Amino acid sequence: MSSRRVALTYRGAGVDRRGKEAVLSALRPRIRLTHGDGVLGGGGEFGGLFRLHGFQDPILVSSIDGVGTKTRVAAGAGRWRGIGRDIVAHGANDVLCHGAAALYMLDYIAAERLRRKVVREILSGIIAACREETIALLGGETAEMPGVYAPQEIDVVACVVGAVERSRLITGRAIRPGDAIVGIASNGLHTNGYALARAVLLPAGHGRQAGIQRVLRRVPRGLSEPLGEALLRPHRPYSRPVLALYEHLAIHGIAHITGGGIPGNLVRILPAGGRAVIVRGNWPVPPLFDLIQERGKVAVGEMFRTFNMGLGLLLVVRDGDGRAAVARLQRLGERAWIVGRVVAGPCGVEIRA
Amino acid sequence: MSSRRVALTYRGAGVDRRGKEAVLSALRPRIRLTHGDGVLGGGGEFGGLFRLHGFQDPILVSSIDGVGTKTRVAAGAGRWRGIGRDIVAHGANDVLCHGAAALYMLDYIAAERLRRKVVREILSGIIAACREETIALLGGETAEMPGVYAPQEIDVVACVVGAVERSRLITGRAIRPGDAIVGIASNGLHTNGYALARAVLLPAGHGRQAGIQRVLRRVPRGLSEPLGEALLRPHRPYSRPVLALYEHLAIHGIAHITGGGIPGNLVRILPAGGRAVIVRGNWPVPPLFDLIQERGKVAVGEMFRTFNMGLGLLLVVRDGDGRAAVARLQRLGERAWIVGRVVAGPCGVEIRA
Repeated sequence: MSSRRVALTYRGAGVDRRGKEAVLSALRPRIRLTHGDGVLGGGGEFGGLFRLHGFQDPILVSSIDGVGTKTRVAAGAGRWRGIGRDIVAHGANDVLCHGAAALYMLDYIAAERLRRKVVREILSGIIAACREETIALLGGETAEMPGVYAPQEIDVVACVVGAVERSRLITGRAIRPGDAIVGIASNGLHTNGYALARAVLLPAGHGRQAGIQRVLRRVPRGLSEPLGEALLRPHRPYSRPVLALYEHLAIHGIAHITGGGIPGNLVRILPAGGRAVIVRGNWPVPPLFDLIQERGKVAVGEMFRTFNMGLGLLLVVRDGDGRAAVARLQRLGERAWIVGRVVAGPCGVEIRA
Repeated sequence: MSSRRVALTYRGAGVDRRGKEAVLSALRPRIRLTHGDGVLGGGGEFGGLFRLHGFQDPILVSSIDGVGTKTRVAAGAGRWRGIGRDIVAHGANDVLCHGAAALYMLDYIAAERLRRKVVREILSGIIAACREETIALLGGETAEMPGVYAPQEIDVVACVVGAVERSRLITGRAIRPGDAIVGIASNGLHTNGYALARAVLLPAGHGRQAGIQRVLRRVPRGLSEPLGEALLRPHRPYSRPVLALYEHLAIHGIAHITGGGIPGNLVRILPAGGRAVIVRGNWPVPPLFDLIQERGKVAVGEMFRTFNMGLGLLLVVRDGDGRAAVARLQRLGERAWIVGRVVAGPCGVEIRA
């Protein structure tokens, strides 16, 4: 290679260290508000420090995930705060499946170039959700990677760590034929199926085009709000009602309905010889899913394998506890239904019309 | 929007769920080899389960990070296994800075489309490094995000969780004027400064061009190996020698030299009133750094703020322990030097010629 005429700096090579520092410094006091007794240190550590106490025999439960291409809808609408909430709820719900409360999380935000406003909005959403759910934002990384990301695109990832007393661990191993399956309402697509939803509902091309903004502002037939509102509603956390329920009632298994939908996720907790039968009429499928299905002429099976179809979390409880679980969840402000049963049969999930 | 003529599926929308499953299924037995007694469950859980035991008052130490644009060099060379090793060592070294041994990790691999071979190679590298370092690969996520990543590009992220007995926690608070700073040799750029290194050493444009492959195969003047070998050498872990040393000798502080270089990282552990003076001649700067500096006409200060300059980890120990630390590290097979001192003065790092 020929030698270069101008001296290179890291900034010239596409990485702006100072802009990143400025955003993080401004947010640090608010990040600290998420820190309870457990967090040690001031925030500049190489690893986030969390003192684990109050457990006899702790099982750590950890999940890593991204928000996927929901970011492209956020880019289209220029609204990023919900994406922060999304990533917190996604991880917290995953660890909840094992009976664990999320203790802390670390985020990873990467793009070709990070726009300060976008990072600030995403982190503000993360901080707000962490405070509401009593999760410490223990650390994180923001990375600028020229050439790796498409221009204007961003990826948002989080690792959430929770803990549960070993005697309270939920794995699905306790599931028996006869058990009731209780579904709790989702509040939208959560963070899954956006590749398909975007392909069906949004014009092709880059998220920031004017055409997409117009479509997101419109109220489609069947919905009572603009499409952008419906598509960007943040993934909701289920920890509070479900951990409250778990104080009163044995839960045999919990499935968070993410990518793969009800069949792809419920099957993960079923024991050998346990077959789940879900009856489609037992809960109302929200109109957003109908809209996607009709507009895209998507087969029902594909809809169920891609979207949560209105159920964000499924609980498996003893037959006799099904109604009590629904009633208690309703008193806690949830919409919940007995949506199916576990029967004896080859391990799998059946969706019946 | 007009309705569409052809029915859409998630696969048609750009996400191939089955290809991903195939790769992960094939690797699952090898992933299980990384699981010691601590890991519960079979691998399909919503959150990875790790039983924490053997601690009186455990401090969890957690780090999240990506390998950055080293992936672009890997793409140019078509060699991905080292990238897996990189991400394990990076995180393990971060938690080591607090005296913690890494217990488990979760990975996140995302791209526009994931090529099976690439994912398999990266995960193979992760698994190999995890086995060597006794880290459980507890979970992970692979995401295909059409439109978010540039074609052929990939991001590789990991969250590493370790633990240390509270009485053994290292934070830098014990650092005092007079303390010796011991540097341990790096084995290359590790995972930092690749945006600048690529801008200086590699032809512009996409990583898979034939031009880049040719440059990577060449042995540049001053190096004793092809450039690709030098640039892709995996980030090395320091846990074994450093935790062995810590059995014998008090360590006041540890800094992992990543983005920001020696000044940007050493400052993170210095107490108020503690100033680090690093003397440049005290260790040999490897020729790869000279090559980047000369070819790019990069200022020395910028080199030190961007690269590790031959020192991957710095330990701060009591003045009288400096030589003993170096001697013990050498017996453990490391190259190590007393590279500087802590003096009384305004908190900061000074690099002296």
